Amino acid sequence: MINVIGIGQNRENMTLGAIKAIEDSDVIIGYKKYINQIEDLIEGKEILKKGMGDEIARAEVAIQKSMEGQTVSLVSSGDPGVFGMANVLYQIISKYDDVEVKVYPGVSALNYTSSKLGAPLNDFAAISLSNILTPLSEIEKKLRFALEANLIVAIYNPISKTRKEPFRRFKKCVLDIKGEDALIGIVDSTYEPAKESIVKVKDLTEDLVNMSCTLIVGNDLTYIQDSKLITPRGYVIRSPIHELSRNHYEKFLNGEISHGPNRECEYYPCHWDGQYCDFCYCPFYPCGDSSTGGEWIKGKNVWNCKDCHWPHQKDAVNCIRGPLEEILEEVDDLKKKKKTLLKLRRACLLNNNPRDL
Amino acid sequence: MINVIGIGQNRENMTLGAIKAIEDSDVIIGYKKYINQIEDLIEGKEILKKGMGDEIARAEVAIQKSMEGQTVSLVSSGDPGVFGMANVLYQIISKYDDVEVKVYPGVSALNYTSSKLGAPLNDFAAISLSNILTPLSEIEKKLRFALEANLIVAIYNPISKTRKEPFRRFKKCVLDIKGEDALIGIVDSTYEPAKESIVKVKDLTEDLVNMSCTLIVGNDLTYIQDSKLITPRGYVIRSPIHELSRNHYEKFLNGEISHGPNRECEYYPCHWDGQYCDFCYCPFYPCGDSSTGGEWIKGKNVWNCKDCHWPHQKDAVNCIRGPLEEILEEVDDLKKKKKTLLKLRRACLLNNNPRDL
Repeated sequence: MINVIGIGQNRENMTLGAIKAIEDSDVIIGYKKYINQIEDLIEGKEILKKGMGDEIARAEVAIQKSMEGQTVSLVSSGDPGVFGMANVLYQIISKYDDVEVKVYPGVSALNYTSSKLGAPLNDFAAISLSNILTPLSEIEKKLRFALEANLIVAIYNPISKTRKEPFRRFKKCVLDIKGEDALIGIVDSTYEPAKESIVKVKDLTEDLVNMSCTLIVGNDLTYIQDSKLITPRGYVIRSPIHELSRNHYEKFLNGEISHGPNRECEYYPCHWDGQYCDFCYCPFYPCGDSSTGGEWIKGKNVWNCKDCHWPHQKDAVNCIRGPLEEILEEVDDLKKKKKTLLKLRRACLLNNNPRDL
Repeated sequence: MINVIGIGQNRENMTLGAIKAIEDSDVIIGYKKYINQIEDLIEGKEILKKGMGDEIARAEVAIQKSMEGQTVSLVSSGDPGVFGMANVLYQIISKYDDVEVKVYPGVSALNYTSSKLGAPLNDFAAISLSNILTPLSEIEKKLRFALEANLIVAIYNPISKTRKEPFRRFKKCVLDIKGEDALIGIVDSTYEPAKESIVKVKDLTEDLVNMSCTLIVGNDLTYIQDSKLITPRGYVIRSPIHELSRNHYEKFLNGEISHGPNRECEYYPCHWDGQYCDFCYCPFYPCGDSSTGGEWIKGKNVWNCKDCHWPHQKDAVNCIRGPLEEILEEVDDLKKKKKTLLKLRRACLLNNNPRDL
């Protein structure tokens, strides 16, 4: 019997299943650093510490010991299914008859990294920059597609002393596709507890990253809030419709709100000359999404849009107006159809089809 | 203090940190089903079971209880950072001063699903098909890019009784981009232990999937081996160079192997008329990668290429030959440069640039 075990990044993130499987094993096989992490759990067992790079040898030994009737734990950090020992073992196990295998998943580096940074994940990709087994052309293709798709991207094996080219390509991909202000969270598990930091990609230098780091690249909605990296999912926040907003959308529904700048308004331009006034009051209020500049006024339960000018921009208004006219049949739909409205907002923000919600 | 806690899919996959945090909490808040999963751990505590859909309300209650001085556990299944409660909480927490939060990552459904299926992951994407908060156009874009990039794709929230359109789009994307034989692993956690199955996308019907399923779509290398879903990473398997292979590559290095079919050979055509004979012996042997048809002969430690015809196909030979001539300087490079050769194989298999390894 071979247990392929993910031990997480530290003891706190180890599962009950992993502990039990290790207790029940006769032989423990793994890379030195990971064995040291569980030293107190394996006293009296046969221990085979191996160096980095001889994964196939580790898997072969595990199979041999298992065929001798021993219960074996083959240990990976994080989750053995995510750039760990599971694939390696399966690559050779079909040589043999009747070797029983159970994979114990663990808390992978991306989940751990995410928890340290705040809540950066959403739809995401995990890509290893190691080009030891994977061509650079393949790594770059995956990065480009994932970033173009607006997936969050978790980066494993970002750099090593001898392997810097993939990191340079990675940085260039992010700069090309996301621009210099794209946010990158870095969690460095050289330390225990790991140290986290957040930088813009233009400030991402090689000395900030080492082989014990996992990186998370934000998407077009990711923002920093109180030193945490957050990607909003767009939950509905209930709030009454403001009386002035109600009046505006009554007129909107009656066809009395013109398209574009309203130079006749006594407050025009309340933001900038050329601003579009179709949505004098935001139809998505309160979105609760700081990615466009809004924020909560602390202690007041009031969402403040002062720094969000997006609904007054020409492109945004052109994207929103048609579909909004179809969605809104009465003013109360600003509340009743809030989920649909927030999806319309999101589609226009991310340049997706606003009529396919 | 608010602990945002991932409890995994079942007790075996719960972390030590999650258990300790729950023990240390006064108040436990979560969706009913997840609270039931930890009922034995929360006796005597204040329990707030909530229904699905009112995530913001759950987060607000957690904040209120925390501000009253209580230690709160806000419970998610899997990992709260992956389509769980972490984003929700951060969406509203900046309303308040000084609410302390710690996120406890857990074994996410994709890691659990992967462990049940075998070793299907590698570079991958995780995409939710729920269009409650995300427009369909965005979901479809992410799916298409991830599949085009040849990422493995884990699918969360595949379908519900009232939400079937995203699943139909998903199936169409896989059919369009991967073809009807693309492999899909399904893990259904309606059951405990969860039930796994593997189907081709052409056989993926709505009745096979429900809201408790997580799906994993294989990439162009994923194959089935002894009922498990495997995606090879391409580790080097050490083996001697066969004498006949050595002779062939001596000639190759001397420029004595012609390009294309070798009709003068007494064995031609050993596979099919029109076969390319440049690599009469495979330069990548043994690749240990069943995705092109090779397999181990059980009990013999011999890699059998009988069903792999790829190195005799015109396109493959055209992709491989030029770069191979540059990599191979002597026959022993078939061993010494094995990693580079396996990357060349992979680049040609996946239609990436074979000169950018």
